[in-house]
Amino acid sequence: MTDTIEKPATAGLSPQARVDAWLADFEAALASRDVERAVAKFAVDSFWRDLVSFTWNIKTLEGREGIADMLTERAVATDAAGFRTRETPTDDGGGVVSAWIEFETAVGRGVGHLRLRSDAGADTAWTLLTALQELKDHEEPKGASRVMGAVHGSDPDTRSWAEKREDEEKALGYSTQPYTLVVGGGQGGIALGARLRQLGVPAIVVDRHERPGDQWRKRYKSLCLHDPVWYDHLPYLPFPPNWPVFAPKDKIGDWLEFYTRVMEVPYWSKTTCLSASFDEAEQRWTVEVDRDGERVTLRPTQLVLATGMSGKPSVPTFPGQDVFAGDQHHSSRHPGPDAYVGKRAVVVGSNNSAHDICKALVENGVDVTMVQRSSTHIVKSDSLMDLGLGDLYSERAVNSGMTTEKADLTFASLPYRIMHEFQIPIYDAIRERDKDFYERLAAAGFELDWGEDNSGLFMKYLRRGSGYYIDVGASDLIADGSIKLAHGQVDHLTEDSVVLADGTALPADVVVYATGYGSMNGWAADLIGQDVADKVGKVWGLGSDTLKDPGPWEGEQRNMWKPTRQDNLWFHGGNLHQSRHYSLYLALQLKARYEGIPTPVYGLAEVHHLS
Amino acid sequence: MTDTIEKPATAGLSPQARVDAWLADFEAALASRDVERAVAKFAVDSFWRDLVSFTWNIKTLEGREGIADMLTERAVATDAAGFRTRETPTDDGGGVVSAWIEFETAVGRGVGHLRLRSDAGADTAWTLLTALQELKDHEEPKGASRVMGAVHGSDPDTRSWAEKREDEEKALGYSTQPYTLVVGGGQGGIALGARLRQLGVPAIVVDRHERPGDQWRKRYKSLCLHDPVWYDHLPYLPFPPNWPVFAPKDKIGDWLEFYTRVMEVPYWSKTTCLSASFDEAEQRWTVEVDRDGERVTLRPTQLVLATGMSGKPSVPTFPGQDVFAGDQHHSSRHPGPDAYVGKRAVVVGSNNSAHDICKALVENGVDVTMVQRSSTHIVKSDSLMDLGLGDLYSERAVNSGMTTEKADLTFASLPYRIMHEFQIPIYDAIRERDKDFYERLAAAGFELDWGEDNSGLFMKYLRRGSGYYIDVGASDLIADGSIKLAHGQVDHLTEDSVVLADGTALPADVVVYATGYGSMNGWAADLIGQDVADKVGKVWGLGSDTLKDPGPWEGEQRNMWKPTRQDNLWFHGGNLHQSRHYSLYLALQLKARYEGIPTPVYGLAEVHHLS
Repeated sequence: MTDTIEKPATAGLSPQARVDAWLADFEAALASRDVERAVAKFAVDSFWRDLVSFTWNIKTLEGREGIADMLTERAVATDAAGFRTRETPTDDGGGVVSAWIEFETAVGRGVGHLRLRSDAGADTAWTLLTALQELKDHEEPKGASRVMGAVHGSDPDTRSWAEKREDEEKALGYSTQPYTLVVGGGQGGIALGARLRQLGVPAIVVDRHERPGDQWRKRYKSLCLHDPVWYDHLPYLPFPPNWPVFAPKDKIGDWLEFYTRVMEVPYWSKTTCLSASFDEAEQRWTVEVDRDGERVTLRPTQLVLATGMSGKPSVPTFPGQDVFAGDQHHSSRHPGPDAYVGKRAVVVGSNNSAHDICKALVENGVDVTMVQRSSTHIVKSDSLMDLGLGDLYSERAVNSGMTTEKADLTFASLPYRIMHEFQIPIYDAIRERDKDFYERLAAAGFELDWGEDNSGLFMKYLRRGSGYYIDVGASDLIADGSIKLAHGQVDHLTEDSVVLADGTALPADVVVYATGYGSMNGWAADLIGQDVADKVGKVWGLGSDTLKDPGPWEGEQRNMWKPTRQDNLWFHGGNLHQSRHYSLYLALQLKARYEGIPTPVYGLAEVHHLS
Repeated sequence: MTDTIEKPATAGLSPQARVDAWLADFEAALASRDVERAVAKFAVDSFWRDLVSFTWNIKTLEGREGIADMLTERAVATDAAGFRTRETPTDDGGGVVSAWIEFETAVGRGVGHLRLRSDAGADTAWTLLTALQELKDHEEPKGASRVMGAVHGSDPDTRSWAEKREDEEKALGYSTQPYTLVVGGGQGGIALGARLRQLGVPAIVVDRHERPGDQWRKRYKSLCLHDPVWYDHLPYLPFPPNWPVFAPKDKIGDWLEFYTRVMEVPYWSKTTCLSASFDEAEQRWTVEVDRDGERVTLRPTQLVLATGMSGKPSVPTFPGQDVFAGDQHHSSRHPGPDAYVGKRAVVVGSNNSAHDICKALVENGVDVTMVQRSSTHIVKSDSLMDLGLGDLYSERAVNSGMTTEKADLTFASLPYRIMHEFQIPIYDAIRERDKDFYERLAAAGFELDWGEDNSGLFMKYLRRGSGYYIDVGASDLIADGSIKLAHGQVDHLTEDSVVLADGTALPADVVVYATGYGSMNGWAADLIGQDVADKVGKVWGLGSDTLKDPGPWEGEQRNMWKPTRQDNLWFHGGNLHQSRHYSLYLALQLKARYEGIPTPVYGLAEVHHLS
């Protein structure tokens, strides 16, 4: 024995050699079902995030105890092997080596990401991401395995592609039943529909609008995507290089319509779901829908609610709403400024929609007052693009070899528990960069915040899906007084004004309630019943114990893209990035069940909040 | 002096060093306007193919004399410089080094391809391709320079994107005139329309069908693309990885329709051109169109005929056509088999359409006889894919890093004069590979050929655009007698049969004339007048002095994508590959003229044939 400090075992080794050694030892531990040895490969403060490859769940295991528990339950059945790097690992500085990996399980193939740290001379995993990508014997027909299209040689089925499609569409929902019914045909439903189609899972996407894309087209006319194009690609078919950075709503509507057709997504327009109930004995749903006036009963095994991650509009109730003589509507129903030129508008709320609507109103000659009821996080679009997204989603990222798949997985590899630590410095930099801007805004009386822990926009989005505006110009209109500002809660309405708690009366010809949305399980309450809504509980949020995201800590977004407490009921949605990326994992979960592959769920989340 | 054989100057030099030295010396010669020195850089049997970068033409210069002539006229004005490699040159064996290059001219930026050979110890160019890619100060907004979409800050124009589009569409063709009118909205017109839109050239694409894609949808129902997906991408938006290898006609129709929308191509459906005349004084066209019943006069400066490279249907005249009691129609109007089940069909012709139609008829229970009037070149689709296209257009090519752009330029870099030399060995290999197949076909009496010089399908396509079938199954039906075969010319029709020159009577309830198409200048004759059709002469073909492609040698495809003998009249079309690639060069020529950039045309082709 000696007390000489030994050189770390990793000294002098290349990142490749360090990762190879770790993977080999980890795989050997798994192969021998030696959970203790496998767990010892992880740091004490480690995170293993699994996207349905080990857990048939979306789950972050925190620390050795969490990992040990999962492996004890799942190591044998998962039978993971073949761990290897996909490309040369890199030294990220600070003693961290990171690697893209791939592996196989008993039923599928996965990719992942590993960050190693040298602790006391030995490499341990700080973060591990494992993500199922495909099921064996159920690979998607694409690339070299794409369908032929033309049938070479003599085809016993003489119908053309169009005839087969037509026959299939006539039968689906009538003489044949979809395995999965997706309620809601916005970007989420469409992306999932495309993946299910690719995977050969019979599905129907139903939507109340006349055609795909109307979810965007029908909104206020100035609406554009607030996320840049690199962040917004749908599966399989990226936007072309001439696509705008921020697509206008009608253009994205056209794209969604085009995409639905090209991907052959079975899509029922003008269809409203009336009710749904789950038959425990048969383990399938009975869903009554109104299809353009026709009553149809569908019997899907799986039901996916993709009706918007923001859930149902929260329309506030105020005394005097019945006597107010002008127009009043929730922001989701705001028609745009054209009818209000020369009139007075009061917009209640100060988040994204409120800002967008105020900007369009004031630019069209409407007298506008925004009622700020609580502080708001503001970040300028270009700063968010440069500092928040630029490394992963930008032309710069593309030019440096970053693919959308890699960017999504990189993002997914950061554990939610510590994500704010990565976010805070970004917003510190933004605060500094746009100091003048924030000072002008504050001087105009606008109440700013940066999230409870100063972690900024993305954490607010993940925790509560609200509380911010990505500035594309409205803030300057507030700073210069073009958009007037009022503060406080609304007390009541009169025939022609909105009266605040402090007695301020705001004259109004139109009142817009930009008051946000409730939890997505509100849709389940309407469609299935309050009992099921309560059984699955709140949707969205991490349990961060911050405003509108009560604890306890959940580690993943509640109920999104993963099994819920209601058998065969799923929630899908989010922004375009999430719709793209998580639709894969939801589709794989549905495909596995469709094919009868056992999918024992590890660590189904507890329900702590009803909404 | 010594007669010791010296080591070649290139010995021991890397391909990069050899190419760098050649480019530097070539550039120096151009810079000093020393044509003789520049020409000496080329081999005696060299080819320089220029796509509008030096010549404002599509032109292959053959040998030192041809190159000297062009440079004498064009070197000063082109002012080419900045020649450099785009990636590391490769040794192709046989003493040939090849390199991807880029360069600039006075007005634009180009890319190219160079093949060097060591002749008597010095590197000389064997082939050089120079291809304009963009005009300076008129670069396309894409990638990092794409449009923002949302207008950040306050926008003085309060119209939404959809409103601006609508206003533009209302004005275009009425209060504002298109600079370019594209007649024909199939893949060619649409691809060109997309490029012109990107380049900001005001244009309208007019088409007689109800909606884009109907050019495909309205054809016989079994029609699929005979070229594989990797060969078929349109500009900007490649097909997704789940696109079929051979897209069925209705699916490609849907793609074209939505591509048109997504690319914001100004497209007038249900529009027929009635007449066109060129005003020499004003240097613009007057075009009368019928737009869904409305008569509109358009005044474009440039007129592009993109009505199909195959030109107008050639419908033969036979005695007795007036007494024949059944259906008779050209293949372009054939509705498919459904109406003819249990009946007897005679299909006159033995090329692609004839085979496709016969196959669909016989598979649907129709008694079918194909009348072979002359020998036909047959190549199996998978052999063509593997041996003919595989290196450039296949999943294998994609996986080895081949991009569509590079594949197109590689193809373009092979001079037409010697292209058959590269093609003959491919077809020798196919003949060997599919020996049994050809023997069976010959045994059934089918008359086969391989082109006059055994150079196969692609040369037939380039020379005459006919004379072949890419086999996707019909040949087996001929070999096994399911499709009956007759030989010879049609003499006349009776009330219920087709009678051949040898007296054979073929009973028929329907006769399909799969008799091909005339030259594209037939469209010009109809629309503008026979004088203009004669002035521009035959369209398509190389002047190879083979059947249906009379000499003299032209070196490029007649009248395609380049200036013609009629000012401001252009022909555009071809398969999807050509529509994609050559639409760039046509669009750049139109853009340059639109912007008033001088475009002196070098080597405008002579007219040798009227049709």
